[in-house]
Amino acid sequence: MSVDPAWIAVDWGTSNLRAWAMSGDGRVLAEASSDEGMGKLSRDGFEPALVRLIGPWLAGRPPVVACGMVGSRQGWCEAPYRAVPCVPLDRAALVMAPVSDVRLKVAIAPGLKQTSPADVMRGEETQIAGALRLLPGYDGVLCLPGTHSKWVHVSAGEVVSFQTFMTGEMFALLSEASVLRHGMQGGGWDEAAFDAGVSDALSKPEKLGARLFSLRAEGLIAGLTPQAARARLSGLLIGTELAAAKPYWLGQRVTLIGAETLSAAYARALASQCVEALRLSATDCTLAGLSALSPMTEAAR
Amino acid sequence: MSVDPAWIAVDWGTSNLRAWAMSGDGRVLAEASSDEGMGKLSRDGFEPALVRLIGPWLAGRPPVVACGMVGSRQGWCEAPYRAVPCVPLDRAALVMAPVSDVRLKVAIAPGLKQTSPADVMRGEETQIAGALRLLPGYDGVLCLPGTHSKWVHVSAGEVVSFQTFMTGEMFALLSEASVLRHGMQGGGWDEAAFDAGVSDALSKPEKLGARLFSLRAEGLIAGLTPQAARARLSGLLIGTELAAAKPYWLGQRVTLIGAETLSAAYARALASQCVEALRLSATDCTLAGLSALSPMTEAAR
Repeated sequence: MSVDPAWIAVDWGTSNLRAWAMSGDGRVLAEASSDEGMGKLSRDGFEPALVRLIGPWLAGRPPVVACGMVGSRQGWCEAPYRAVPCVPLDRAALVMAPVSDVRLKVAIAPGLKQTSPADVMRGEETQIAGALRLLPGYDGVLCLPGTHSKWVHVSAGEVVSFQTFMTGEMFALLSEASVLRHGMQGGGWDEAAFDAGVSDALSKPEKLGARLFSLRAEGLIAGLTPQAARARLSGLLIGTELAAAKPYWLGQRVTLIGAETLSAAYARALASQCVEALRLSATDCTLAGLSALSPMTEAAR
Repeated sequence: MSVDPAWIAVDWGTSNLRAWAMSGDGRVLAEASSDEGMGKLSRDGFEPALVRLIGPWLAGRPPVVACGMVGSRQGWCEAPYRAVPCVPLDRAALVMAPVSDVRLKVAIAPGLKQTSPADVMRGEETQIAGALRLLPGYDGVLCLPGTHSKWVHVSAGEVVSFQTFMTGEMFALLSEASVLRHGMQGGGWDEAAFDAGVSDALSKPEKLGARLFSLRAEGLIAGLTPQAARARLSGLLIGTELAAAKPYWLGQRVTLIGAETLSAAYARALASQCVEALRLSATDCTLAGLSALSPMTEAAR
């Protein structure tokens, strides 16, 4: 079955490459993904990786709009950060990638930077733009949990300020590469242990350093189960993030944008602080954001 | 030149194996080390690894006294933890390793455990015992910085309580395996950046999660140098440890036991809080502790 999209949406991060064949009226005709993320590619590897994935969709030479680390200095071509406060996406700032395949025309969306405190994002600006299309007139806070979680204050259609937390990466390193991994093998989850970790971290965030090794010690001498250790570690790290991000969520309207399971964990942690967060799918937001940049949207303006 | 020790001291950790040929009156006749730490060995690999290292010293069948992870459940043979409060070492609790080489007689020192909050140590108990021999009548706090830093309250010759921090392991993971590694390549050190990290962490320890990614962002958009990034990360992590360990050092007599460079960093951080810590060499303490367990010491009692 041939796919003949009006345009192609691409989300190209450090670890993964995802693409959607889009119709002129914004429907997804087909999707594809590979593990050829930026982290695996040298500069001249991007075009071949993209053609491998979306070659079958290119007969009609549809324009491609991409976001994510593909636009970083180590990516396909650098799309310089735009400085906040600003609207999350700006068609005029798109950067065209150098291509040799005549069927390709690839526009890359820039990320955002904040001078003080210094911070950067790439990819999330597109989800933010999408969220603002899905929630017209939204004023408040967006939280995008992930490897590098972002808390974002949006107002009047602009990103006002944001802050990044390495919570997801810390969880991966501690649970898979540190001494704690010995007590966390296997699957399973212990909701009560997660809640205890969140509560512990929020009430005494300065004690995180002292809490981590306890997970190992309790496994050795007090029978802590692997699922409780994993869940408590997650709770401790998310709770520590919430403690530091308090100005973002206390008394604010909060919307979570992320993968189902992770967003559910953040929503649960926020609910323990009496914050009822709205939830949006990260993919929905990415597609809504890229759609705003597509030539179809331009034609419709 | 043949070495004919009265006994052999062994410090066998996760990453390294170190041995000292000792005279009857406590002098070091020779030393040797290898990277055959516990982490690389299966149970039946310990005896061959030891013989490879100290075979030339075994003609006179000197007894071997060992401490460290060699006595863990994943080690040569388990030396069950002793519960604090207790003296750091007890000759009666030594466990004899199973051997097939007739020249070998290997005694392993057990670690210590604390029930609440759960904590464990292996190897440090020997350094603590050594420190108490080097500083007779010492009453106060010992800090043993390292992969897993320990803060230890000792009184009347006993370990009263202790707490472990994963500071060294966190530094290694964040500086070598996380996104921060990109901005930390190369050597060098920036003392002012270290001090700023310590101060920042001690004044707002709950903000650690928010400080880490700034190191990356400042490298990308504000010209933060790799040596400043590394030193500030170290300062942030040590400062966070000090914040959580405050009950151990505030108004207390503190002695640092560790490698030269790391102890110097901790001493500098403590000095910023008006705590002047005494410093002992980790190797001196290990040897003094193992000497207390040696048959020579027993004969002298």
